[in-house]
Amino acid sequence: MKSLSSMALKHESGQLLVLDQTKLPAEEAWVHCQCPEEMVALIQKLAVRGAPLIGVAAALALAKQLEGGASEQEFFAAASKLRAARPTAVNLMAAVDRMLTAFSRFEGHKEQVVREAEKIFEEDAALCEAMAERGARLVQPGDQLLTHCNAGGLATAGIGTALGVIIRAHQQGKNIHAYVDETRPLLQGARLTAWELKKHGVPHTLICDNMAGFLMSQGKVTRIFVGADRIAVNGDAANKIGTYSLAVLAKHHQVPFHVVAPRTTYDPSCPSGKEIPIEQRAKEEVSRHAATESVWNPAFDVTPRALITSIVFDDGIA
Amino acid sequence: MKSLSSMALKHESGQLLVLDQTKLPAEEAWVHCQCPEEMVALIQKLAVRGAPLIGVAAALALAKQLEGGASEQEFFAAASKLRAARPTAVNLMAAVDRMLTAFSRFEGHKEQVVREAEKIFEEDAALCEAMAERGARLVQPGDQLLTHCNAGGLATAGIGTALGVIIRAHQQGKNIHAYVDETRPLLQGARLTAWELKKHGVPHTLICDNMAGFLMSQGKVTRIFVGADRIAVNGDAANKIGTYSLAVLAKHHQVPFHVVAPRTTYDPSCPSGKEIPIEQRAKEEVSRHAATESVWNPAFDVTPRALITSIVFDDGIA
Repeated sequence: MKSLSSMALKHESGQLLVLDQTKLPAEEAWVHCQCPEEMVALIQKLAVRGAPLIGVAAALALAKQLEGGASEQEFFAAASKLRAARPTAVNLMAAVDRMLTAFSRFEGHKEQVVREAEKIFEEDAALCEAMAERGARLVQPGDQLLTHCNAGGLATAGIGTALGVIIRAHQQGKNIHAYVDETRPLLQGARLTAWELKKHGVPHTLICDNMAGFLMSQGKVTRIFVGADRIAVNGDAANKIGTYSLAVLAKHHQVPFHVVAPRTTYDPSCPSGKEIPIEQRAKEEVSRHAATESVWNPAFDVTPRALITSIVFDDGIA
Repeated sequence: MKSLSSMALKHESGQLLVLDQTKLPAEEAWVHCQCPEEMVALIQKLAVRGAPLIGVAAALALAKQLEGGASEQEFFAAASKLRAARPTAVNLMAAVDRMLTAFSRFEGHKEQVVREAEKIFEEDAALCEAMAERGARLVQPGDQLLTHCNAGGLATAGIGTALGVIIRAHQQGKNIHAYVDETRPLLQGARLTAWELKKHGVPHTLICDNMAGFLMSQGKVTRIFVGADRIAVNGDAANKIGTYSLAVLAKHHQVPFHVVAPRTTYDPSCPSGKEIPIEQRAKEEVSRHAATESVWNPAFDVTPRALITSIVFDDGIA
């Protein structure tokens, strides 16, 4: 496999390396991933996260395994485990299925299957570029943009989806300001998005999730960009828990609410948001400092199409 | 001063004691408060918190100072510092003003002024009883109630305001379930409200603030009760940051949204929410685990009257 490099995933000197995002921003620790089972564990503990990135990472893990001499049976077993690592993001399943298809089509010719993984990586970066360009056209000079969770370079193999749009608008000199929801319980906004915005020099302000409504009521948010983990046929979009609340608040304050995602996030087998499985995560993520263990901890929620102003895909705006 | 006792504030054996709420739920540490200046510090660091309770605590601190032989000048200086300890809750100012009025009216007769502080304590407990009874009548059997922050026994000298209603409804056998917002950044819901609900045996579930909308969309919330720090003449109510977002979400989902507060929370000198000062707190409360120090941290927000189904006062429902 050739050398590949993105903000949180790289292949160099024959090693597949992932940035352990659970340690950010305190520490930038790269972990050498030696087999697909390790990648499953890294994805489940959110060391590798972001709907597009987990798909790319799974594909690379399968390619490395194949290069290492895995049998067909081992390859299919690993694909099955990776595909089930997290239930909500469809990009993961799409990427694994593409590797399985390549394996069948190329009758196990390793180099061709490895090339498919490289293409998945490179295409994701290109999709990000297309979304950033397309989405940035929606941004007006002086816009005050709000985003949730992390949909940036740490969540993709490129500049990002929703955060890519914000970074690109900044690079274009549009004089924007970014507000970032901290995104409980795992603080991806506070830990990851703020980290990326600092790296790119984008002026920003961190808020707690419960401050977004009050911020909007003061006219301080002119536009919202969020990512997506799965988009149903009817346009409903699953994304990090809290996205739905933001969409309702945006509607009440007449703030445009944009979802930014690659076409790989669209699931033609999913008629509506009702059919999207929502991952329930460990209670301890929420209860760490609490007086109770009675916790509800869905990782995602579904925003109905009616609350979405537009969906920015890489190949068009819906 | 006589012996007085509530969940987080007591006077016994001549000592004024406060439960350090910053240490809950890990530790139940009572602090001996020796002078009004110490009470100012305890209020500012939120060791003593809750709009009604900080008013009661300020009154007791002034009474103790007077009993200890303070001069008129020292009494007025302490009152001034206590009055300004936190800017949003009007109960604090109302309680201090009542002590100043008593001092003038009784021409410094200590026993009478001390009696006024005792009355402030006892009246607050009685107001809570009245609100709990009145509010619980709004609760239907099987209701799934959501509350924000802590408006319970830790925030008052009695059973609480909004949380008092929930506890009373449970005691009446109404088979309710309580959902609790964790309430970032200081987690009063997770640390304090969950602690009280456990003590009272009320079935409950803790959620992150950003989950409330998704919870409502699933029909899991039938009614919301929150407290208030100040209610303006036009009915706008200031309360813990995040209350406004909840009110908008409640309107969208047609969930009744009730504010529960004693008459002392009403500010006749404040025409509308626009005139309520909103305390900005230290950035570090939010940025502790974040990648940035660029933070917005308002402690409260204002919910306009139009989003409030009813205000449950001790003496009636508005």
